[in-house]
Amino acid sequence: MADKIETVAFLGPKASYTHQATLTSFPALPPSHLHPQTTIADVFTAVQSRTATHGVVPFENSTNGSVVFTLDLFADLQHQHPDILVCGEVYVPVRHCLVGHIPTPPRTASTSTSTSTSTASQGDDSGAQTPTRSAPNPLKPRATPLADLSRVQKLYSHPQAWGQCNAFLSTYLKGVERLDVSSTSRAAELVAADASGASAAVSSEIAAQIHGLDYLARGIQDAEDNETRFFILRRAAERDGADGAQGGDGGGDEETEKWKTLIAFTVDHEDPGALAKALEVFKTYGLNLTSINARPSGIVAWNYVFFVEIKGRRLEGGEGVVNRALRDLGRAARGWRWLGSWESKLER
Amino acid sequence: MADKIETVAFLGPKASYTHQATLTSFPALPPSHLHPQTTIADVFTAVQSRTATHGVVPFENSTNGSVVFTLDLFADLQHQHPDILVCGEVYVPVRHCLVGHIPTPPRTASTSTSTSTSTASQGDDSGAQTPTRSAPNPLKPRATPLADLSRVQKLYSHPQAWGQCNAFLSTYLKGVERLDVSSTSRAAELVAADASGASAAVSSEIAAQIHGLDYLARGIQDAEDNETRFFILRRAAERDGADGAQGGDGGGDEETEKWKTLIAFTVDHEDPGALAKALEVFKTYGLNLTSINARPSGIVAWNYVFFVEIKGRRLEGGEGVVNRALRDLGRAARGWRWLGSWESKLER
Repeated sequence: MADKIETVAFLGPKASYTHQATLTSFPALPPSHLHPQTTIADVFTAVQSRTATHGVVPFENSTNGSVVFTLDLFADLQHQHPDILVCGEVYVPVRHCLVGHIPTPPRTASTSTSTSTSTASQGDDSGAQTPTRSAPNPLKPRATPLADLSRVQKLYSHPQAWGQCNAFLSTYLKGVERLDVSSTSRAAELVAADASGASAAVSSEIAAQIHGLDYLARGIQDAEDNETRFFILRRAAERDGADGAQGGDGGGDEETEKWKTLIAFTVDHEDPGALAKALEVFKTYGLNLTSINARPSGIVAWNYVFFVEIKGRRLEGGEGVVNRALRDLGRAARGWRWLGSWESKLER
Repeated sequence: MADKIETVAFLGPKASYTHQATLTSFPALPPSHLHPQTTIADVFTAVQSRTATHGVVPFENSTNGSVVFTLDLFADLQHQHPDILVCGEVYVPVRHCLVGHIPTPPRTASTSTSTSTSTASQGDDSGAQTPTRSAPNPLKPRATPLADLSRVQKLYSHPQAWGQCNAFLSTYLKGVERLDVSSTSRAAELVAADASGASAAVSSEIAAQIHGLDYLARGIQDAEDNETRFFILRRAAERDGADGAQGGDGGGDEETEKWKTLIAFTVDHEDPGALAKALEVFKTYGLNLTSINARPSGIVAWNYVFFVEIKGRRLEGGEGVVNRALRDLGRAARGWRWLGSWESKLER
C-alpha cells in the first residue's frame, strides 16, 4: 500500500540543508532521482503536477521558528496546490559556518600557521560583548573567528540563517551589509565567485567543502541544539478523500504519541470566540496540540488561517479520534483542511 | 494620571512607515522630540533605559503577518527589556511604490511625456501572468509599470515588503537580485545614490519624494487593503506591578470590545496538553482571542513562547475578568507576562 518512491523534488541547490534532509529520508534513491528546485513553491508545484512523487521542504527551525513561505503554501490561497499532504518529517542538525577566502595568513601572531582546515572554534568568548545597563546579559557567541574578518564587507545567506547566528554576527560583523539569497548553499556559491575576500557566507560545512571555501568560523549558530525540521510531501490519493487513510502502512494503529497530524482552518472573523471554539475540539478528544501558527488569510485584512499540529493520526475507515475531531471542527470552523498524518521523528 | 509624553523613539529612518505611525499617534509633538532608531531592538532599549518615554514599533502586517523581530523582543529571552508594555496601537495603510531613476523618457510611445509625477497606476493588468495547469489562478498584479524596467538589475527593500508585492515583482521583475535593507526608506536612500538607473527600491511615496526619486510604478502591493499595525510602547510604572493599571485614563471601563490585551506565556513542554489548558482559561472568562503566535523559547529546542491577544483590559484594583483570567493562567502556564492593555483602533 506504500506509495512507490520514484522521484523527489527538494529545495536546492545541492548541498543545501534540505538536500541533507532528502538524503536522510531517501537513502536508497539514486542521485538522478533527486531533483533540486529553486523555490519552496516549485517543490509544491512538482508534487502537485506529479512531476515528482515526493517533495522535501523546510518547515521550522528550533531557533528561528516557522518557515512562513511553507506555511503560506499550505494555506494555498491561490488554489495552486490543493492536493499536497505531509507524509513524513525529518530533523537535521544545523551547524552554520562563516565561509570565505583567506588569501593570506591572519595578521595576528600565531604559534602555527593558520589554515583553512583549522579545527573547531575556541571556547573562550569572554568579553566579546560588553554588558550595559540596558543589556546586562548580552547573548555570547559560541564561536570565535578563525581568521581576520576586517576585510569582510558583504555577507550572503538565507534570511533564516541571520536569526540563527545573531550573537556571532552582531559581535564580530556588526554593521556589515547582509544580502539575502535563496539558500545557504547558493550563498557559498556566490562567495566562491568573489576571490577578493570581501565576501563571506553563512552556510553549512558541506557547502563550504563543495565550493572550496575557507572556514572563517565554525559552529556560529546561537543554540547548540539548533535543528531544522523538514516535511516530506506527497500528492493526495483518491483514498485520502474518501476514508482518510494515511499513506505508508495502512494499519489501524492509533497510538497518538507516535503520530502527528497537521490541520489548517479558518474561523468566522465576525465571531471573535470562534478560535477558542475551534481549539476546544482538540481538547475534547484529548488530542495534544504540539504547535500552532497563524498566517494572514489573504482575503480580508486581519483575518487568519490557523495551523495546528496535534499528536494523533487520521485513520482509515473514519473512526479514530482524529477523524471524529475533524468532523467536529467542521462545525466549529468556517473551513478546514487535513494536511496529512505521519510518524513522529522527534526523539525527546 | 496619563503619562507625560516627552520623547518618542521609533524605528527610523525618517519617512519610514513607522515614522508615519509616530506622526499619526503624536501629532502635537515637535520633531526634535521624535528620535529615529536603527533597529526595533534599539526602540525597546530606549524605552527600557528611559532615554525615551515612548516607542513605536511595527507589529503586524495584514498581508505578510507578524513581525517576528518584535515578537522576539517581547519574548525577551535575554532579559534585556523586562519593563516594556504596549499602551496603544495605530494602523497605517501601506501603499508601496517601485521607485528609481528614469534618465530618459520610456521607449514605448506615449501621447504625453512621462514624468516622475505621473498619476496612479493603470488598472489593466490582464494577461500579466499566464495561467498554467499547476497555477490556474496566478495572483494578478494590481499595478503596471510606468516606465521601462529592463534596466533594473538590483532591488532594495525591507524583507517584509517582498512578501507584500509578490504579484508585481514576480510578474515584472522576476529573477532580479533582491537586497534586504533595514527599512523601505533606507532602500530609497540607497537607490538615490545610484544614478545609473540599475537600482530600484520598493518604498513609500513619501520616501520617494524625500529622496527625489521617480515612480516606476505605484500601488504595487498585492492587497488593496494592505495595512501595518504599530504598537506604542511605554515603560512599566510601579503601579503596573501592584494593581495592574493600564496607563492612559485610570477609569474602570471594562467594555471588552473597546480594549485589547497582549499576553505572553510558556507551558510545560513535558505536558503536551498544556497549551490547550492555557487557552481554555480565556474561553472560561469569555475573553475573545484575536490573535495567537508562537516563537521558539530559545531555551530548549521545540519549546515555544506563545503570544495571545485578547479583547479586554487588565483593570486597576485587580477585579476585572482579564485580571481573573491572568490569575488562572498562572496555574495553567509555566510562566506568563502581561504585556499591556490598550484601546483598540481597529474600526471593522
